[in-house]
This record gives sequence, C-alpha cells and structure tokens, in this order.
Amino acid sequence: MRLRHKPWAADFIKEHDDIAVLNPFDYRGKWQELFEINQPIGLEIGTGKGQFIANMAQQNKHMNFIGIEKAESIIVTAIQKVLDAEVSNAHLIHENAKDLRDIIAENEIDIIYLNFSDPWPKTRHEKRRLTYHAFLDQYQSILKDDGRIVLKTDNRHFFEYSIVSFSQFGMTLEEVTLDLHKLEDDTNVMTEYEEKFSSKGQPIYRCIAKF
Amino acid sequence: MRLRHKPWAADFIKEHDDIAVLNPFDYRGKWQELFEINQPIGLEIGTGKGQFIANMAQQNKHMNFIGIEKAESIIVTAIQKVLDAEVSNAHLIHENAKDLRDIIAENEIDIIYLNFSDPWPKTRHEKRRLTYHAFLDQYQSILKDDGRIVLKTDNRHFFEYSIVSFSQFGMTLEEVTLDLHKLEDDTNVMTEYEEKFSSKGQPIYRCIAKF
Repeated sequence: MRLRHKPWAADFIKEHDDIAVLNPFDYRGKWQELFEINQPIGLEIGTGKGQFIANMAQQNKHMNFIGIEKAESIIVTAIQKVLDAEVSNAHLIHENAKDLRDIIAENEIDIIYLNFSDPWPKTRHEKRRLTYHAFLDQYQSILKDDGRIVLKTDNRHFFEYSIVSFSQFGMTLEEVTLDLHKLEDDTNVMTEYEEKFSSKGQPIYRCIAKF
Repeated sequence: MRLRHKPWAADFIKEHDDIAVLNPFDYRGKWQELFEINQPIGLEIGTGKGQFIANMAQQNKHMNFIGIEKAESIIVTAIQKVLDAEVSNAHLIHENAKDLRDIIAENEIDIIYLNFSDPWPKTRHEKRRLTYHAFLDQYQSILKDDGRIVLKTDNRHFFEYSIVSFSQFGMTLEEVTLDLHKLEDDTNVMTEYEEKFSSKGQPIYRCIAKF
C-alpha cells in the first residue's frame, strides 16, 4: 500500500483514544477489560484501512475485535471507519509489534485474522511472512487451545506457502477454499483489497487452521 | 471416462501377462519379486490409459511401478503403452480392489500416485472419493513410514477436500501447488487428462503429503 504522509495523524490517533489503544502493553493479560462485554476476541493482524474490522464488529455483536496496524497514515482511516460504524466492540492498536506476546498474554485470543498480508515473495524474505513458523509460535501462544487462524489472500504463492507452513507446524486445516467468492458464504466480510482484487475476477483463497 | 466395450479385451490382458499381473493377490507381501531390480515402488491408483505410468517408468529407471485400473476396456490401452515404452519396471493390475490391503502388504509401497481421480462431487458420495479417510487408512498401511502420496487434479473442490482430509487424518503437507504448469518442474509427467485440461488453460493442482 502506498503511504501518504499525514502530519495530523499522530494527533488524530491521540484524540480518538476511545478507539485507539495508546498504551497496548498495559493491557497484556487483561484485554477483556477494554470491552463492555466479556466475549470471544478476534484479532486482525495488519488491519489496514479498517473496513474488515468495522464491518465484522457491526455484524458480530457477540464478539470483540482488536486490530493491529503499524502504519500511522493508514490506521487513521481505520479509526474513522470504526467511528462511523458506531460500534463499541472494536479497538485498534497502532504498533509495530515485533512479538505479539509482549502485548497479548497466553490464551487471550479466540480467532486471528490474517487478511491479504504482504506475501514477501522473495525466498530471502521468508522470515517476514506472517505465516513463517516464528509467527506461528506467537499465534499459538496468544490463541486459546481451540482458537483458529482465518487467512485470506489473493496471492497464490503466499497461500501455497501458508498452508504448507501451517501443516508442517503441526496445525490442522479445517477449511481450504480456492475461490471464496464462488462459495455461498453470506458471512464473509470483505476487506478493501478483497473488493478490489475480486472485482477483477481474481480468485480469493481462504484457509481456516487450528493448532 | 466413457467406456467402450471391447470384446477382445479379456483375451488381450491374458496374452500380455508379462505386463498384466493376472494373480495380484498371490503377490501380496512380495511385489518386489515381480521386478528385475529391487528398488522403490510407485503405485498409481486408477492408471487409466497408462500414459503416466509408461512415461514415469521410462524416465525413472531407479523405480518400479505398479498401476491399478478397474476398467477392462481402458487398461488394455495402458498395457499397449507400457509395451510401446519397452520398459521392464512397470506392471499393471486389472482389479477393482475394495481394499488395497488384500493385494499389498504393509510397507511395500514408497509413493502412491492419485492422478485426476473421480471427484465424486456429491456429498453423499464422499465415501467414494479416493482421499476419504477410509482410503487413507489403506494407504497408510501399504506405504512405508517415509512414503508419500502425490495427488494431481484439475478439480478444485476435490483438491480442497483432499488437502483438508489429509490434514485432518494427521498427515503433513510437503508441497501444495495451485498451478502446476506454471511451476518450472521438468520432472512432471503428464497424464492424458492433464494434457487435455491444461491445454484449455485450466490450472492443475498438486499436493504431496506424508503420514
């Protein structure tokens, strides 16, 4: 995603501390306290412009949502979308977390969403892919025992890599869909990317896996 | 595949008992004895017209091959192709084996090839799919501990089903390829089906899995 510098972004984030969590490290082990209702937490890693988390929060009142996004100029859009959605079950973290375990304690999360993550196609960048085994280590720690990872992407190689990586880590695949939008699934909430790519007729891949 | 009755087929099979194994149940536990060289055995389940096994045998002299095909009118073509290939490391079995374990003993096979198996798309026919867990039970028995299943198909739903079935059986995926012919893999030997479907621009899926 092309980043446009937004000099007002830092202030905007601070002004919206009802949605943006300014001190995420302080919530480690007590994320439920942030929400009105104690209910399953979905974590989106790389929230981008926030369409997914805003719509998910609206359509799934029985869940709480946390979105993490490292780019300041992008998360402001996500904050605005959560504001517009008028939901109380979604919060956003502006943080470039090297290790999610520093922010989230064991067993705090029910579902991790990886939506259109950067595929890092070069082999020498494998370690940066969000389905590299070192990341799976983190996910296994913060997810509940019966937690799930839901991955969507339009990138064929990243998808191939990810399901093999899940499998070789010892995870079990619960669902593999090679053309999500041909599936009759009314519950699928699209990201901005997903709308753009699928409108060009490109297949969207989805996989659900558990440890 | 449309079956054309060939009244001469039964006699043709009997006449070529150097390639066709007429008493496969007698070889249980001693399939290596059938071959000139004691070396890894690849088993193709549903050999069809035999292009795959004939070419594989030609290109992989360090392996032995067995093909099973239940349709009499089809296996005769496979026998002819193995004849034409002038190889001594391929044999064919004309049998509709309900349980492969009746024909093949434990640990006799190194690689199982499932090429363009009937996808049986209806849910009520799931048990007929060659990647249904009851078949995986059989494969696990006849395969060596470090054996592999190599599956190719052009059928998206059958592929999705198969990798989930492998995973839920506890198998590990070693490779998943969603567009085999875009991969630079000179060792890929095409079946008749594969040539036909890929020439139409349809992607071929491949998966390699182990128990």
